[in-house]
Amino acid sequence: MSSFTHPFNPLTPSEISKAAALVCPLFAGQSPSFRVITLREPPKHEMIPFLASEHRGEPAAARPARVARVQVTVPGDSGPGKFFELLVDLDQRAVVRREHLAGKHPYIDSSYMKAVEKACLGDQRIQAEINKLELPPSASVIVEPWAYATDGLNDMSQRTTMCWFYMRLVSNEDANYYAYPLDLCAEVSEQLQVTKIYHLPSTKDERIHEDAKPFDRRKIQSMDASEYHPNLRPPRRTTVKPYQVVQPEGPSFKTRGNFLQWEKWSMHIGFNYREGLTLHDVCYDGRSLFYRLSLAEMFVPYGDPRAPFPRKAAFDLGNDGAGINANNLRLGCDCLGLIRYFDGWHTTSSGEPLKMPNVVCCHEQDDGILWKHTNFRTNNAVVTRSRILVLQTIITVSNYEYIFNFQFGQDASIHYEVRATGILSTALINIGDRVPWGTVVAPGVVAPYHQHLFNLRIDPAVDGHSNSLQVEESNPMPVNDPMVHNPFGVGYTTSSQIIGKEGGLDLDFTKNRSFKIINENVINPITGTPVGFKLLPSYSQMLLSHPQSYHARRSEFGEHAVWITRYQDDELFPAGRHTMQSTGGDGIASAIKARQHDASKASVRNEDIVIWHTFGSTHNPRIEDWPVMPSEKMTVGLKPANFFTGNPGLDVPVSTQEKNKSVLVENDAQSGSVCCRL
Amino acid sequence: MSSFTHPFNPLTPSEISKAAALVCPLFAGQSPSFRVITLREPPKHEMIPFLASEHRGEPAAARPARVARVQVTVPGDSGPGKFFELLVDLDQRAVVRREHLAGKHPYIDSSYMKAVEKACLGDQRIQAEINKLELPPSASVIVEPWAYATDGLNDMSQRTTMCWFYMRLVSNEDANYYAYPLDLCAEVSEQLQVTKIYHLPSTKDERIHEDAKPFDRRKIQSMDASEYHPNLRPPRRTTVKPYQVVQPEGPSFKTRGNFLQWEKWSMHIGFNYREGLTLHDVCYDGRSLFYRLSLAEMFVPYGDPRAPFPRKAAFDLGNDGAGINANNLRLGCDCLGLIRYFDGWHTTSSGEPLKMPNVVCCHEQDDGILWKHTNFRTNNAVVTRSRILVLQTIITVSNYEYIFNFQFGQDASIHYEVRATGILSTALINIGDRVPWGTVVAPGVVAPYHQHLFNLRIDPAVDGHSNSLQVEESNPMPVNDPMVHNPFGVGYTTSSQIIGKEGGLDLDFTKNRSFKIINENVINPITGTPVGFKLLPSYSQMLLSHPQSYHARRSEFGEHAVWITRYQDDELFPAGRHTMQSTGGDGIASAIKARQHDASKASVRNEDIVIWHTFGSTHNPRIEDWPVMPSEKMTVGLKPANFFTGNPGLDVPVSTQEKNKSVLVENDAQSGSVCCRL
Repeated sequence: MSSFTHPFNPLTPSEISKAAALVCPLFAGQSPSFRVITLREPPKHEMIPFLASEHRGEPAAARPARVARVQVTVPGDSGPGKFFELLVDLDQRAVVRREHLAGKHPYIDSSYMKAVEKACLGDQRIQAEINKLELPPSASVIVEPWAYATDGLNDMSQRTTMCWFYMRLVSNEDANYYAYPLDLCAEVSEQLQVTKIYHLPSTKDERIHEDAKPFDRRKIQSMDASEYHPNLRPPRRTTVKPYQVVQPEGPSFKTRGNFLQWEKWSMHIGFNYREGLTLHDVCYDGRSLFYRLSLAEMFVPYGDPRAPFPRKAAFDLGNDGAGINANNLRLGCDCLGLIRYFDGWHTTSSGEPLKMPNVVCCHEQDDGILWKHTNFRTNNAVVTRSRILVLQTIITVSNYEYIFNFQFGQDASIHYEVRATGILSTALINIGDRVPWGTVVAPGVVAPYHQHLFNLRIDPAVDGHSNSLQVEESNPMPVNDPMVHNPFGVGYTTSSQIIGKEGGLDLDFTKNRSFKIINENVINPITGTPVGFKLLPSYSQMLLSHPQSYHARRSEFGEHAVWITRYQDDELFPAGRHTMQSTGGDGIASAIKARQHDASKASVRNEDIVIWHTFGSTHNPRIEDWPVMPSEKMTVGLKPANFFTGNPGLDVPVSTQEKNKSVLVENDAQSGSVCCRL
Repeated sequence: MSSFTHPFNPLTPSEISKAAALVCPLFAGQSPSFRVITLREPPKHEMIPFLASEHRGEPAAARPARVARVQVTVPGDSGPGKFFELLVDLDQRAVVRREHLAGKHPYIDSSYMKAVEKACLGDQRIQAEINKLELPPSASVIVEPWAYATDGLNDMSQRTTMCWFYMRLVSNEDANYYAYPLDLCAEVSEQLQVTKIYHLPSTKDERIHEDAKPFDRRKIQSMDASEYHPNLRPPRRTTVKPYQVVQPEGPSFKTRGNFLQWEKWSMHIGFNYREGLTLHDVCYDGRSLFYRLSLAEMFVPYGDPRAPFPRKAAFDLGNDGAGINANNLRLGCDCLGLIRYFDGWHTTSSGEPLKMPNVVCCHEQDDGILWKHTNFRTNNAVVTRSRILVLQTIITVSNYEYIFNFQFGQDASIHYEVRATGILSTALINIGDRVPWGTVVAPGVVAPYHQHLFNLRIDPAVDGHSNSLQVEESNPMPVNDPMVHNPFGVGYTTSSQIIGKEGGLDLDFTKNRSFKIINENVINPITGTPVGFKLLPSYSQMLLSHPQSYHARRSEFGEHAVWITRYQDDELFPAGRHTMQSTGGDGIASAIKARQHDASKASVRNEDIVIWHTFGSTHNPRIEDWPVMPSEKMTVGLKPANFFTGNPGLDVPVSTQEKNKSVLVENDAQSGSVCCRL
């Protein structure tokens, strides 16, 4: 195997060790804990010539340096610890930047959550409050620690973790404790001390209070209603017959390390602790399309206005890490067919490489018909089937799961599909009560309304790095205008503008408002218009929280559905680099505002631009989402718009029975006859 | 086989013959031509008790009469013919209604189109004009007849067919003649006489004119650019490896005639000449959901304002028939896996049953993950895969294809997916010119802008026939309102109204406006709210044509995205029963207006209601749509909203390697190892 590591490749295990070894001396004797050792992607101005050589099949004149971004915490002697970020040039074997991130916090991980839970349950005052709840004898208490979403009530420079209490009624580790939210809440400090304990509102007009109420035994549910794990449920239905995918000649994709090729597509697969799967240098038939594609952030704010519930508002990438929380897809049979897995690499707290196996799966899928035409005069039909390539990751963030798929098509389209599944977050309520910001899902259990907001970062390089964003609408031509020929009132045309400055834009399907990323320097020889790729947005409500709320000020990206910025190295996160207990002013809107008068940074016409699409769902739970939610799908697309000179899938082979081997089913009997004539 | 024919079953071949035999005597000696012999579905008030008995497994007290709807034309002696519609009670063997549809026209079919083309090309004046075009020696001229979309210029009580001229440059019947639109246009009368001939505008400001221009030889294209048929193109790519679906234990669905059962779903499959596939008595786990689901109409108006192009506006169901134009899916390998086909039955012009084989295909498909949760404390993952049932039809309407799929899920959801594919309709343009209402797709060829508007008719019976439409929005709670506790500015609630009267409604994703079909008489025992099903609309621009245009007045349904009406027997078509050359005033808006003051018909709260969803796409062609378009997908959904008491797919078996038999791919080599542990 070559010793050459592509500049987009995630850090290898030996690079992780090397980075840790170079950083350790700077914290000698301070017991540093490594939170992150990850690739610091090369500056784009270094990558552009490198990629150009690579595309031409020539060795690069210069290879960008391999640099690691390292985050370290060191415990304080008596007070809070310190949080540092360092850049380590692995080629030069030198730490080239070191920054003390005062007031910032690293992500929260499951080992810290376990330590918080242990500290919480080990606190005598907590135990006393639990006793006052008079729980059933079989109950065991669970603490679910959450990041504290800034609400203005506490000093956020100190890390505080919220502890939400639940219980299991049966002694099975997979019992669904979310069915039993308890009337108890606590805050735990950085030093793992319980700093506050209180009881939660059980009715609409109640507030936080000091008085424990015994657990209402009427809230005990049948396991049939509360459990999802097969071991705790009645037997499964037996009606589902197996369905298998076979590819007797193997898959159509080829991989060489992290380089993937499939049906004229090529790209580099990346993976990091925070964004999970990232795609680099996405090309089609040798033409450049996207420099980078990634989920940049997500935000899940809850709509219950009563303290302390406004502290539930999760930045699952920035706070927790979509890479760190990625599922091992091999264990769960999450993919079907002929599957290639990719591993990820993280770090232990002592700086050793930690393998995250099978965090990305890659496989083909049939997606129905790609194109068809039947000449009605001859009855000759030509059909091609749409084969797609799927790159999938799944994250678990406490109660919820999110499935993220990139899908590539033979029509040169890309789709990004998000599915939300897992378990609703719950709170308690008195039996018989209702609240206007939640759905009762079991006696005494309410699932509060909340939003899921995702932001897809699209760094285009459509036939090159000088791109523009064209916004087009379809408008009826006027009637009764002597200057306009529209005698039958049916004419319509399009109007468009090219965006000149960074900013946020909104969707409007009533005008067929379309967003096209174009290259004004490359004109399609047939249509006479610039080549481009069009966004197929997912229409959804933007952030409901008030603009002056911390939710809004910390997220920023939830204000508009489409943002456009001028490319800046390392500008990857639309709610800012450090979201944990952030206080606002670090997101995409603030960045835009800060440079609005600097044309060298603010202008986005015929420049290196980045498009950020915010989409998601306002999730007002229904009972069908309980006890585990059937996946809710949200899809974004990107498709060529006058980029090619015709249908790029025209040479896809026609669909034939010889290849498909479909089977005829006759009236319940499987007859085995051939399905079709071609 | 039982002699019992279910009331929802399409007419059998013998019933078709019987209907013809009963009608013929009424037109003795008049050479009647049968256009339609189809089931007239029983009145709902007769079906309700019948279905109730059926659901209880008891024989029905009374079976609704089998009635045929018959449309007949008789030629006129010297002038235009006459068009009749009759209802024939097949049980009583009697014609029970007969109506002369003065001023109305039946659909246009391919045999009539062939007759029109023959008449056109056989006309000496047409041949003289063709000669003036000085076409290349190898050219053969094609006439593509289209229905005349009313523009106010002609008497629509007489049938007129528009003739658009194209040519083939190579002598192959599957050559793409749409690549060569010709400068010639004609009108043909009912009696197959060419009544008008003119030449078309070639520039933006030109108008219809008399002067032929010789064909511009620079418009000759390479076959590589203009052809789609594999025999006329370079060899296909060879990179796509076969992908097959196997179900070693057979499919999970069962059919008994037209009755289909799958994964707690049950329904009756219908099919008719006009709507194609219809679904009846759709139930889940024995509970009633939808009385009827169907595509009710579609409208494809073109946006070129210059005469005669406003005559291009196709009602593909009303004018042509989605059943009549349904593809035989077996010939084209349009479906994959284990497939059951359903046939349809039409009539010949002499009243003999005409089999339409394999017009509906039924098969399962894997749709990724249904639900998943991993307990992060134990690392135990539970995954279920989503198996869906697909019922597919495809229609060819001259140049275009439309693929219509109903998809049923194990989460008790239904999705309706439309894909547009086939060939763009083209017109001519001077080389180098542009028009603001079209895209140049080849030298001298413009593909005009147009819209595709579909209307899905949803006749709900959610736990019974008294339903309501609840429209709900998600609203931020106010800040700085002393009456409202929202101290952190993050609270949000929902507000809703129940629609009281028939009318048209609009979508608004910015408010998360949701449309739920509910039964106010059935309260969910857990949530305390009425059971319901929620619409997942497809967001698209409504009709662009001016409200006073004929396009708008004839379609009506394109004005709003969601319509609600009170159920009326036989009220099935939102642009009216007879769309061919219609003049307006027959659609859903007119029906609503006519009875707006009659509460016994206009009230829609807790009544038998019908919901109609208009959706589609404003299609401004891109070159990638040429010469045949990669399918464009539009999806509508219906999902339970507090209808059940939990996730209806909770008992779906977990995904296991034993059942899935996935295969591990290691770095380009197919290793054959098992994919996952479970």
